[in-house]
Amino acid sequence: MNVAMQVDEIAAYLDEVFPQVRGDFVIEAVADRAVRVRMPVAERHLRPGGTVSGPAMFALADVSVYIAVLAMKGREALAVTTGGSFDFMRKPVAGVDLICECRLLKIGRVLAVGDCLIYSDGMEEPVARASMTYSMPPK
Amino acid sequence: MNVAMQVDEIAAYLDEVFPQVRGDFVIEAVADRAVRVRMPVAERHLRPGGTVSGPAMFALADVSVYIAVLAMKGREALAVTTGGSFDFMRKPVAGVDLICECRLLKIGRVLAVGDCLIYSDGMEEPVARASMTYSMPPK
Amino acid sequence: MNVAMQVDEIAAYLDEVFPQVRGDFVIEAVADRAVRVRMPVAERHLRPGGTVSGPAMFALADVSVYIAVLAMKGREALAVTTGGSFDFMRKPVAGVDLICECRLLKIGRVLAVGDCLIYSDGMEEPVARASMTYSMPPK
Amino acid sequence: MNVAMQVDEIAAYLDEVFPQVRGDFVIEAVADRAVRVRMPVAERHLRPGGTVSGPAMFALADVSVYIAVLAMKGREALAVTTGGSFDFMRKPVAGVDLICECRLLKIGRVLAVGDCLIYSDGMEEPVARASMTYSMPPK
Repeated sequence: MNVAMQVDEIAAYLDEVFPQVRGDFVIEAVADRAVRVRMPVAERHLRPGGTVSGPAMFALADVSVYIAVLAMKGREALAVTTGGSFDFMRKPVAGVDLICECRLLKIGRVLAVGDCLIYSDGMEEPVARASMTYSMPPK
Repeated sequence: MNVAMQVDEIAAYLDEVFPQVRGDFVIEAVADRAVRVRMPVAERHLRPGGTVSGPAMFALADVSVYIAVLAMKGREALAVTTGGSFDFMRKPVAGVDLICECRLLKIGRVLAVGDCLIYSDGMEEPVARASMTYSMPPK
Repeated sequence: MNVAMQVDEIAAYLDEVFPQVRGDFVIEAVADRAVRVRMPVAERHLRPGGTVSGPAMFALADVSVYIAVLAMKGREALAVTTGGSFDFMRKPVAGVDLICECRLLKIGRVLAVGDCLIYSDGMEEPVARASMTYSMPPK
Repeated sequence: MNVAMQVDEIAAYLDEVFPQVRGDFVIEAVADRAVRVRMPVAERHLRPGGTVSGPAMFALADVSVYIAVLAMKGREALAVTTGGSFDFMRKPVAGVDLICECRLLKIGRVLAVGDCLIYSDGMEEPVARASMTYSMPPK
């Protein structure tokens, strides 16, 4: 499939419609049904013990799948998250950015399913796995 | 089962070990394997369209199960989230607090499973369902 | 909401469209957005150690949510399972039927979400929790 | 990591401890933290419309992760399924075997997490995604 929006275009669109997370995420790459997104780790993401919080990883997976849907469908895609599942497998490295490798397993007319592996930047083993389901309401 | 920590004690403990979320959550009730937690809705929780974000609801479910584990096990409980699943079913009412009704389905020696229904305050139908798994590492 | 199909009607319909599972499940009760289904435990459901298998519990949860959707929407409901999540919390009692208490948290035009607790008959604590998502394709 | 058991050894062990599913699954390949398992499709796996049932796909994912754990840990591994999540994305091709590509994302001392993509044999797009969590009780 062809990509409908490129990195700069998606980043500008997100800043416009979703100013609450401006600066929280950096889109590193967009390809056919796949994106890579970086989350520069900030104090507000931390939990006791110095590890990144589950909600911060949820946010990273959620925005990554949303970005992947935008990339394939374009800005008219009014996708809303309808479900998700998570496995938190390792403690993220303290003070290191998180990288989300996201792949769309399905991008249908009404449902999209994205699969994410989240890494501490530079590490080989993922810290978390996530899958997110998005629903695309009829126009 | 008897409750090991009461509301005020848990609230003070959370403020101490988890200052990043101070003020984000209000523990309303603690009972045998059940807690109710309020999330006063703030601008930073919002998404395009005025709805509360998925990550904010994840945070609410996550902290609610953690509070329920603390309530039953006491402060020595070093629980970490190992997994979770979510269904987002309705759009939260804009500008209204969220209420999480959480029940521990299992509180074992090494694993705890909590089930959460999240409501817009005053509404009858839940906006989201969540289940979270916590692991209690050996001391 | 009013129930669209009663127990006998649903049972006859399942036998007709889904003969592979004839005799596997007994519908015990149908109410507004809630059903109770019994699975008489058979040799083919067992796993090493005498416990009921995960797939058998999946089947029970899946059919229970399907029955709940039929009960509310009637036989024209062409629902297909689009997702599910499970927690297996206790070992089922050997040689004892399983009971699934299922509640529809959402029964919309295109999506239904059902929540299930599965018990060994007569036990107070659930052996498993399941949530299933069904999609209702447009007619 | 080194593989602790090879295909023939695992197949013989499964037949011994889990005779209920003898013949249901064919282990095609075992490698470091990865297995491929075939499910020859049989009448009992079908649902209305000729598609393979969700429970059959659950069984395939569940046994695949179990095989992967055996492959890495050896036969002393007393793993039990503690949770799982599923996305059913496409209708399997009628009358065609299912293939499960399974990868262990974590194989720790007490928890294992496996990720599965299930395909109709010969198709490029997966019909389902599954992740399963296994707990390894202390000896």
